[in-house]
Amino acid sequence: MKRILSGMRPTGKLHLGHWVGALSNWVSLQDNYQCFFMVADWHALMSEYKNTGQMQQLLLDNVADWLAWGIDPEKSVVFIQSQVPAHLELFIILSLITPLGWVWRCPTFKEQIRQLKDKEVNTYAFLGYPVLQAADILLYRADFVPVGEDQLPHLEITRELVRRFHFLYKREVFIEPQPLLTKIPKLLGLDGRKMSKSYNNYISLDEEKESLRKKVLSMFTDPERKYKHQPGRPHVCNVFSYYNVFSPKMSSQVENWCRQAEKGCKECKAILADIIEEFILPHREKKKKILKEKKMLYNILEEGRKKASSFAEATLKEAKKVMGL
Amino acid sequence: MKRILSGMRPTGKLHLGHWVGALSNWVSLQDNYQCFFMVADWHALMSEYKNTGQMQQLLLDNVADWLAWGIDPEKSVVFIQSQVPAHLELFIILSLITPLGWVWRCPTFKEQIRQLKDKEVNTYAFLGYPVLQAADILLYRADFVPVGEDQLPHLEITRELVRRFHFLYKREVFIEPQPLLTKIPKLLGLDGRKMSKSYNNYISLDEEKESLRKKVLSMFTDPERKYKHQPGRPHVCNVFSYYNVFSPKMSSQVENWCRQAEKGCKECKAILADIIEEFILPHREKKKKILKEKKMLYNILEEGRKKASSFAEATLKEAKKVMGL
Repeated sequence: MKRILSGMRPTGKLHLGHWVGALSNWVSLQDNYQCFFMVADWHALMSEYKNTGQMQQLLLDNVADWLAWGIDPEKSVVFIQSQVPAHLELFIILSLITPLGWVWRCPTFKEQIRQLKDKEVNTYAFLGYPVLQAADILLYRADFVPVGEDQLPHLEITRELVRRFHFLYKREVFIEPQPLLTKIPKLLGLDGRKMSKSYNNYISLDEEKESLRKKVLSMFTDPERKYKHQPGRPHVCNVFSYYNVFSPKMSSQVENWCRQAEKGCKECKAILADIIEEFILPHREKKKKILKEKKMLYNILEEGRKKASSFAEATLKEAKKVMGL
Repeated sequence: MKRILSGMRPTGKLHLGHWVGALSNWVSLQDNYQCFFMVADWHALMSEYKNTGQMQQLLLDNVADWLAWGIDPEKSVVFIQSQVPAHLELFIILSLITPLGWVWRCPTFKEQIRQLKDKEVNTYAFLGYPVLQAADILLYRADFVPVGEDQLPHLEITRELVRRFHFLYKREVFIEPQPLLTKIPKLLGLDGRKMSKSYNNYISLDEEKESLRKKVLSMFTDPERKYKHQPGRPHVCNVFSYYNVFSPKMSSQVENWCRQAEKGCKECKAILADIIEEFILPHREKKKKILKEKKMLYNILEEGRKKASSFAEATLKEAKKVMGL
């Protein structure tokens, strides 16, 4: 079975955008790959170092979502990056052989410095983001890494580091990971911008019924449709795109009632709210159970730590042996 | 008792330059401070990453010199940096809050890139040199760090990191270390350049009698004194400066025989060779014993690892607590 490593940064509550963009993919990958799913807390700290207080709680909350939405700890290894010290050790080893230009010229670096201006990520740690990511991937000898197009440069640094390590120490230790490019339907936020904690335009994966309803009713629709009797344009309506994701078989029906002005936006959104509520409900209930019985959650993370550690330590040991350390 | 941290990078055999410039100072500091003496192997790897194979042996050889020349493991903690994982963890924590400009503009960085051109140290790890050094110092809550003038900028980064950490997390965890500037007589190499492994102009701390004699006889003297009957100029003669270091009470006598042309350079050097041999002999013998009975050496390092770890872990724990991790 081929191996996969993927991670999420515990920087906020998980929302529908995470489900559509990553978590649903993780859930289905479990059947065909040996998956390592990592809480990337060191990576999170690179941008959240000024606001570290709530991370421990967020981290448990995120993992509870993973489990509630279908990550199966019997199939996959669920673990926390900072609990496996091998990550830092391989990080510094790879740092030794990383020419500054590789990280300095990484397109995501300057881009992120611009985007995260208020977080002041122009730090020494943040510059090393792709090197730590390389360590994460290489420790588990991952064959594939699910990535979006924008993350291809990071993966390329990982692949270059593998080649450089093998060149310098004259032995093959690591696997050059391949990207697993997945076509992902983009789910926008309530206001039509990217769904994000910082825009406060998200529906979280454990959104309660009432708050969910309020949020969906607040969604932007076709701005040119001002009155109920006016026909709408589904292809510019964010609500319609939600139907496509959460109830694709209703698509033509919704398109109809919008174009024919059979239903107003409010009614259309109320129906969507019910659909999403139905979608979230079982997972929300499951998550509540998981968080009530924290012991199980801790056990899963402890099991994951053990499995991840023994795998990672074995790789690290071999790397150090090859270097004569 | 105030605490001191100091380290040496295991990049080559120790020589008389190390004794005069650092080790002799360490030995005398032991009486008035609680000293942590560290084999800085991660730091060594930053420049020696292409040539890692011999480091494990060098490392033991260096520690054997420390012990043979007077470092007392009953008084001081002798340990290997890479055996105390807290160093890497505090390193990444400090990296999170280190503005790139602080390391980028550090005067030693660009200087070293120039000097160590063939080692290609323009790497991500090497840029972080002063941040790792800060972690080393802060973990042991060192009050003082013995430094040369050229290292003051590094220590200043440590002090700035302390202030930034305390500002961001609103609690005082670390001690702002002070420099312990020590006036150190410079001992040049056999050819008058800096004594260094790479110039092959050194006398090692376990130099054997015959090879020592050959090396001293090869030393450069006053280049204008071509014949024995010509008077020499002690103040430009490297051999004379060795007398000042290794037999200061002979100073005026040597000055006399040189200026009066009573002795030729060869005889003068032969006498110096005997003096240095007498100086090295007991330590060389002691080192041989230490390396014969490796078990004691391993025990000392294991004891050191334990003491250093428990100290470092306590500091790290407090730092993480303050950050809410």
